[in-house]
Amino acid sequence: MKLKYAVIGTGAIGGYYGGRLAHAGNEVHFLFHSEYEYVKSNGLRVDSVVGDFVVNPINAYRSTADMPKCDVVIVALKSTQNHLLQDMLKPLLHEKTVVLLIQNGLGLEAELAQTFPNLTIAGGLAFICSSRMGVGHISHQDYGPLTVGFQCHAQQDVLLQMKEDMEAAKVPFIIADDLNLARWKKLVWNIPYNGLTVALNTSTDVIMKTPSSRQLVTDMMEEVLAAAEVCGAKIERSFIDDMLRMTDQMTPYSPSMKLDFDNNRQMEIRAIYSNPIRIAKEAGYYMRKVEMLEQQLLFIQKRMNG
Amino acid sequence: MKLKYAVIGTGAIGGYYGGRLAHAGNEVHFLFHSEYEYVKSNGLRVDSVVGDFVVNPINAYRSTADMPKCDVVIVALKSTQNHLLQDMLKPLLHEKTVVLLIQNGLGLEAELAQTFPNLTIAGGLAFICSSRMGVGHISHQDYGPLTVGFQCHAQQDVLLQMKEDMEAAKVPFIIADDLNLARWKKLVWNIPYNGLTVALNTSTDVIMKTPSSRQLVTDMMEEVLAAAEVCGAKIERSFIDDMLRMTDQMTPYSPSMKLDFDNNRQMEIRAIYSNPIRIAKEAGYYMRKVEMLEQQLLFIQKRMNG
Repeated sequence: MKLKYAVIGTGAIGGYYGGRLAHAGNEVHFLFHSEYEYVKSNGLRVDSVVGDFVVNPINAYRSTADMPKCDVVIVALKSTQNHLLQDMLKPLLHEKTVVLLIQNGLGLEAELAQTFPNLTIAGGLAFICSSRMGVGHISHQDYGPLTVGFQCHAQQDVLLQMKEDMEAAKVPFIIADDLNLARWKKLVWNIPYNGLTVALNTSTDVIMKTPSSRQLVTDMMEEVLAAAEVCGAKIERSFIDDMLRMTDQMTPYSPSMKLDFDNNRQMEIRAIYSNPIRIAKEAGYYMRKVEMLEQQLLFIQKRMNG
Repeated sequence: MKLKYAVIGTGAIGGYYGGRLAHAGNEVHFLFHSEYEYVKSNGLRVDSVVGDFVVNPINAYRSTADMPKCDVVIVALKSTQNHLLQDMLKPLLHEKTVVLLIQNGLGLEAELAQTFPNLTIAGGLAFICSSRMGVGHISHQDYGPLTVGFQCHAQQDVLLQMKEDMEAAKVPFIIADDLNLARWKKLVWNIPYNGLTVALNTSTDVIMKTPSSRQLVTDMMEEVLAAAEVCGAKIERSFIDDMLRMTDQMTPYSPSMKLDFDNNRQMEIRAIYSNPIRIAKEAGYYMRKVEMLEQQLLFIQKRMNG
């Protein structure tokens, strides 16, 4: 089976995974906005720890209306843009299209399913350090695995082919039997560090070296574990220690939300905070410290928006 | 009965109340540090909405070792300086001296009682807008009542005389039958606004106008009420609405902790946060959002201290 791919949101994540697939010989169609003219002439450049490459020529588009229907649509937009999906996706969908949301947070697949009840929706978690260096230029510094599972409906044959394509393109690919568990596990890290680096205007290493904020991180991780459990995702307590140890060993790091904050962009508060808080509350657990961080982030976002 | 007063911490609060007593003809001895030379020559100037005055000559000292023993010692230091009291108080105490702590927070009288188990200790709450304008110059803009009650031992005759002296000096004086309740009631306002204006680097009016932070204030007030109740201080729920309404009507305001933060001074985290959190936990209630604010303030204080 030969899969035809589309990438919506050709940034550091979408550009990397889509670029890898294209470089390995797959048919990939990319949506661009401001970068369109540049990549049409110069291609998409990816500097990567597992090998540099340029995708040139590239199937680049300004609008999904000009793109062909595809078998797999990789959505790597920031989740703050997901309200655009209703219109953007339509031209790309045939009856068996799989839409893969490579996005942080919780509840995004369910939101999309409300708009497209019959769509096969998968969720993806990218464990990667990758950033946009400039126009048409992505730098991949570390890691890279992609974890993917189905949320609404399932098409195992497409998933297996995707795994084969990705692995042939040097992307480690993990099939998640339990996407809900995978998403909650990622939230154990994302919830404390994304928001606290913004609220305290600092970086992960300073948080870890200061006893009171280190304890606060631990408290919040414990809340996330308790919330995950009532939502059917049982995570061992030792996972918290693993996350703390991993963060101790990381180089000083600004999570994506801190980069958004520093660059005056919208923060992914809904996906990473509001949705998990609401979903856990509905299931019977109230993450109080996490909710306080959400309240502070909403305050900060409102001040940024003026 | 003629009371001899001492004032330790002759700032905006101690200078105002002590100055009022001296201006009304009472014997008051003031401790100064950097302002000593100036006030010796120029006196202590108080501009007040209920009448300006200058205390000149003034009984000013550089050290409590030079001061006489007094009947009432008014301590209006910032609570971050209370570790100095052990040495400072000794020269001032006779057998029946009453030490009055006019300070924010909780647990300070109990701390002092550990050092001086036989001392008569009272607590005072100042409802006043007063600030230091410059060397030897205090400005009293609004309010003024002083609420006083006993924490350890009691000397009603001294308290009644103090009330008489204060009222003759234009200071409304309220005897608190339940100092614990009075302190918890003041914390209902102090806990959310002092810390949040620092953590969010804003003022009370912006907090009140932003839905997420207004809700956070309400959440924290509810935690304080629950904590107060397990500590034997029952406060009606309507008190929260009163506090919110009062703050809505206030001019934009920076609480004392925000002023300390803006001026790079130590914040009263222990008295206003750590002590109430610990005391409530021991009594069986965990203020989670309040504790998160404490953790953030400790982080901010540590970064300020470098």
